[in-house]
Order: sequence, then C-alpha cells, then structure tokens
Amino acid sequence: MNIEIPASAAPTANPAFAYRLLKQDGKARLGEIVTPRGIIRTPAFMPVGTVATVKALYPEQVRDAGADILLGNTYHLMLRPGAERIAKLGGLHKFMRWDKPILTDSGGFQVMSLGKIRKITEEGVTFQSHLDGSRHMLSPERSIEIQCLLGADIQMQFDECIELPAERKEVERAMELSLRWAERSKRAFEMQLSSGGAQPGQALFAIVQGGTDIELRHRSADALVQMDFPGYAVGGLAVGEGHEAMIATLGETLPHLPSDKPRYLMGVGTPLDLIESVRLGVDMFDCVMPTRNGRHGYAFTWSGPLNMRNAKYAEDSAPLDVESSCPAARDYSRAYIHHLIKSGEYLGAMILSWVNTVFYQDLMAAMRAAIAEGRFDDWATETKARITPSPQSAPSP
Amino acid sequence: MNIEIPASAAPTANPAFAYRLLKQDGKARLGEIVTPRGIIRTPAFMPVGTVATVKALYPEQVRDAGADILLGNTYHLMLRPGAERIAKLGGLHKFMRWDKPILTDSGGFQVMSLGKIRKITEEGVTFQSHLDGSRHMLSPERSIEIQCLLGADIQMQFDECIELPAERKEVERAMELSLRWAERSKRAFEMQLSSGGAQPGQALFAIVQGGTDIELRHRSADALVQMDFPGYAVGGLAVGEGHEAMIATLGETLPHLPSDKPRYLMGVGTPLDLIESVRLGVDMFDCVMPTRNGRHGYAFTWSGPLNMRNAKYAEDSAPLDVESSCPAARDYSRAYIHHLIKSGEYLGAMILSWVNTVFYQDLMAAMRAAIAEGRFDDWATETKARITPSPQSAPSP
Repeated sequence: MNIEIPASAAPTANPAFAYRLLKQDGKARLGEIVTPRGIIRTPAFMPVGTVATVKALYPEQVRDAGADILLGNTYHLMLRPGAERIAKLGGLHKFMRWDKPILTDSGGFQVMSLGKIRKITEEGVTFQSHLDGSRHMLSPERSIEIQCLLGADIQMQFDECIELPAERKEVERAMELSLRWAERSKRAFEMQLSSGGAQPGQALFAIVQGGTDIELRHRSADALVQMDFPGYAVGGLAVGEGHEAMIATLGETLPHLPSDKPRYLMGVGTPLDLIESVRLGVDMFDCVMPTRNGRHGYAFTWSGPLNMRNAKYAEDSAPLDVESSCPAARDYSRAYIHHLIKSGEYLGAMILSWVNTVFYQDLMAAMRAAIAEGRFDDWATETKARITPSPQSAPSP
Repeated sequence: MNIEIPASAAPTANPAFAYRLLKQDGKARLGEIVTPRGIIRTPAFMPVGTVATVKALYPEQVRDAGADILLGNTYHLMLRPGAERIAKLGGLHKFMRWDKPILTDSGGFQVMSLGKIRKITEEGVTFQSHLDGSRHMLSPERSIEIQCLLGADIQMQFDECIELPAERKEVERAMELSLRWAERSKRAFEMQLSSGGAQPGQALFAIVQGGTDIELRHRSADALVQMDFPGYAVGGLAVGEGHEAMIATLGETLPHLPSDKPRYLMGVGTPLDLIESVRLGVDMFDCVMPTRNGRHGYAFTWSGPLNMRNAKYAEDSAPLDVESSCPAARDYSRAYIHHLIKSGEYLGAMILSWVNTVFYQDLMAAMRAAIAEGRFDDWATETKARITPSPQSAPSP
C-alpha cells in the first residue's frame, strides 16, 4: 500500500485522530485522516458494507482494491444481528474481518427510507423493523451507543433526513431538529468517551442539512462549526435533486466548513459526481453504486459504463476492461459476463461488484495523484471525456 | 499439485486417453485418468458447473480446492448461451476459464427433470425449454454434437432416465432404448472424431441403466461392455431409492464392468455415499450437494455437517472448522456465517460453497491416501464416525 505522506509528519491536535491537508489544487484537496486503525488517504471512497459485508466481495478483495475505510449501517446492524451481539463478539471489525477504519452512519437516513410506521418526536424516532415488524427506537443517545457498541472509528450524529422536494418550512424544521440532535449526539459521544464506551481516537462527525436551500445550509453549517466537530458531512443530497442542484448546493455549503477538518459527502455517487465534488473540496464519499450496479449487470470501465445485459456482448470475446487493475476485468470475456448476468449467476455479481469496487478505488487514487501533481483540472477534463456514459449505456443509480 | 504417479509410467492403449489402476485395497481403487488436458486423480469428485460456473465460486477457488475435472450440463448450456455460441467463443474451457478436463452429461437426465412437454420417440426427445418455452430436440447424434461443440474431454452417451419407482417393464424399456442410444452415441462420436468435431484423446462413456433391478443392470452392463467404451457410468441411481438400495445395486453392477476402465457413479452424493461407493470400486462422482447445500446454509466439516441457520451459532465465535484446509473455514466465525446466511447475503453462499467444495476434494484426497496406504477400511470406519451427521443437523440432499 502506498501511503502518500512521509511517516515523520507529526499528528496535530488529537494525538490519535487528525486530518492533514497535504496539498490543494484549486479547491481540490489531497489529505489524510489519521486514526488509530490506520491512515485514510483522501479524497477517499468508502465501500458500503450494509449488514457487515460489502455485497458479493470477500473482505480481502475490498482491502486489495485499495479501500482504507468502509461504511457500516447502524439501522441494519441494530436489527440484525444486533449491536449488543456484535459487541459481545468483539466488535464490528472482528466480526466482519476488517481491521482498517470503519465509519458508521447514524441510522437517521435509513430509518426514514426503510423503517415502517415511524413516529418522530423531539426525543427521537420510533419505528418498526422492515425485517419482522418489531418495535425499535433511535435517538441521538441510542444511535451513539450503538455506534460505540459496533466500535466505529468514525461515527455520525443522529439526524433527520426528509424527502425532497419539501416545503421550506419542513426542511427548516428538520434541519433545526438535526442541530439539536447534533448537540445531544456530541454530549452522548463525550459521555461514551469518559465511560470507556468510545475509545480515544474515535471521532464523531456532524451532518449539515438544509435541502437545496442555501440559507438553511449556511445556518446549519455555521451552527455545527460553532459546536466544533472533528469532521463534517453534507447530508440530504443525492436524494433526487439531480447532479447540477447537488453540485450547486455543495459549492455554497463547503466554504462554510473549516479547511482543517475532513468533509464527507454522504451517499454519493456516480464517477462524475465524485470528480465534481472533489473539485469543490470534498474528502470522503460512500455509495452503494459500485456493488448495486454490479449486481444489476452494470460495469464501470475506463472507457465508460457498460450494461452487460446488452445482447451486443453475447459474442464479445474481449475482456471487460484492459485498463482496469482488477484481475477479473482482464481475465473474463464480456461474453461470459453477459452470460452469467443473464443467467442470474452468483459469479456475475461477484465479478462486476469486484470490478466496480476496484474502479472506484482507482478513480480516487487517480484523483489523489492528479491533485498531488497540481493537474486536477486537466485530469478531470480528460477523464470525464473518457468515462462519461453514452446515453444508451448509462447506469441507473 | 501432487500427482500421485511417477511421470515415467507409460500410457496404455489410446495414447491420449487412458485409465491406470495404481493400487487396489479390497475393491477400492486408486488410479488416474490421463487426458490431453491433464491427469484426473481417482477416486475423483467433479464439482458441478451447471451453466459454465460452479455456483458462487471463482474458477481459481475450484482449482485450488484440488479439483482435477469439473462437470458441465449439456441441457443448460444448449439453451443458454447455446452450444454453437460457446464453440464460436473457443469452447467451454476458454469460456469459463477452466483449462483442466471437463466432463459433460448428455442432457438425458435434465431434459426429463426440467424440460416441459416432453415427447420421447426412438429418434430422441423433443421438449420445451424451462427458460422460455422454445422447442428443442435432443437425440444421441445431437447430444454428441453439442458435447463436441462444447469441447468436453469426457462425453456421455445420450440415455433415457426414468423416475423411480417404476414398473419393471417400463424400466426395461428405457434401459433397452438407452442401449440402442449408446450404439448411436458411439457411432456419432466416432464420426465426430473422423470429421474433426471431436479431438483425439476425448472419450465417450456409456451409462448403465436398469433401476434397482439387478437382472436389468447386468443386461445393460454386459451389452455396453460388448460395445467397448473407454469408461462406464452407473446412471439412474440417487433418484430417491435410498442409500442402502443404491449401494446394493451398485455392488451388483460394478463386477460386470471391466477393471481396466474408469467407473463413474452419476449424481452422487453425500460423504457417506462417496465412501461406501469408493469401497465398492467407483472412481468418479459428481454432485451439486457441496454448492447447493452451501447456498442453503449447510456446512460440511470434519466433525460432521452443521446447519448454520441454527440459532445456536448466533454467538459462536469459533471458526467453522479448524481442521479444514479451506481458509474460509478457519478465518470466519460461525456467528458471522450464521448472520450472513440469515441475511441472505452473497458472502454466506460464497463462503459455504467454498468450504464445502474444499471438504469434498479433501475427502477424495484422504480416500486416495488411505487406498495408497492399504488402510481404506480403517480410514472409512474412523472417518464415518467423525463426519456422520447427528440426526438434527443432517443436510438435505
């Protein structure tokens, strides 16, 4: 693994958790996040391991793809196998055989999209499990408790995510509730730290909300920065507002975040989304797209995305992508992958999830290299021209 | 790979395809089948790659498990992606990235179990695809043609498999039809050889039929031996007649087969089936059990089969099987595998299919070693005591 900083560089502030900005190219940032479990090279893409597995991949494949950190979902894990059970088994890292950093979300987003019969109060959210209808509650305190039980290196504040489009008043109400929940999350995390529930070097990030309303985004960001978190996420984007609106909102929000802390754009996105967001100064991403699209037959390649269900690949003996650093992209023919996907075979999902996970990591590595060399803009122009989907082959999100 | 014979041993008869009996221990046989694509150490278990993939495994995993040969299904492959298409793409080996020997069945069994609206005549079988209802025909000549297009190293005669129990008259009729189809298969294969459709060193095996009727089995075996095939399969067993009846029928059938040719028991079976069949002199097996049971949550271990869905594994931090030579059996906890299987995750099927495939190959290697050392009976007694399922954990076939 190529760690992109000399080992002698001294950590700042928190001896165990720190962000180092190594180089800036325009607004694009090359950096690293130092944690007790290892360094996260940024800009970083976090593969999503929803229920303690990055779907259809062995953990060794995720590691070898170059991922420095992955994401686990509080909502899913609290329901099955349960946070207390994972703690009893030694924590999420040991459970899923991943010894590098893990970030967990707070459950706020998924309790809204997956939970049934939700009731939101100042206290928190009560809901029924999508698995068995059992009743559960999430609050800032319980979310942090779960994330500590899981042993997450980076934890997220509990927030309320609302569907867009929504009335401004409703967006404002949810944003302000999320601010109060940010404070409670912070207090809960500090209590976990002092009681030994959280470990030194673990960090809690805040989440900026406010929909696509710039004024609300500014108020949210400013208030959270006042509270002083070690990292800031931008949440509530990539929920159907479109690429242009997302980039516009992001461009107005990021200047309100401190430059000495990592910035994480949640749930994003396409390769184009990543490039344009890095250009604006985002450091971290997560998205199910590489694996979900892989399972559905979409391949990300260095000459653009391919829909492997397309009949034109049925007799195409060429490898998937000779430019890929993933062995599967070079070893298997397109005809074979087409056959596997059409047949609904495990190996089809395994190959494409692997190829796509490697593509995303390679894309991040290429962005880091371009920033290091001060040629991000040129790199972005060239790369977008190569990998922009032709209209008929565009992957669905 | 440990080839269990000195390289100087001279091939017999056919310069490219041969069976060598290396050692006999009681009736159990240690041997090898020599093919242009490599040596098959016998007794051998062939993983099943139904639609050109051993389900949920990378081909490297199958190879590294120690498999010298795998099986492909004519019925499935003729329907999707099609035999002519695979030939156009360079054959089945290249298509699925497997360069060791491949055996293909004739389609006779699956056209009966999966095909719709079948009509059997002296000429062959017409049927509708289970995938799309399209009409197809299989005859001895077409089955051999397909197997040649796939490039199978060992091909099987076209036969009629009937469901048991059945009237003796019906079993006899199907057995006699299968004898006539054996002759036609042999002629077709010889024509393919002379026209270049089949390659020197490829071989066609006959299939003994006759249900559990010993007299019919004898007539079938004797007639096929008269025709002189390079190998003989016992078909139409493991179709619900039970372990005892299967072993009894096998014990009466094998003495009618020549000792200088390999004997293949089709579609079998449990570890116990394999041990008792090797004891009687069987050299080759195939079965979907390791992968199918793996997908359903059953693990074969050296201390007996485990049903990983069982709640008792939910907090069991022990590895699956410390005695296994499969890394996954030692690396992942039972609690994690339980969680993956309960959650329907790809990785659960991937891990258990891998563990089980390795178990079956290790079981065959242990049998070969026991025969080589002349202690097969003792080994079998010890091993059966270890791996016999407890009543509540028995895997379903």
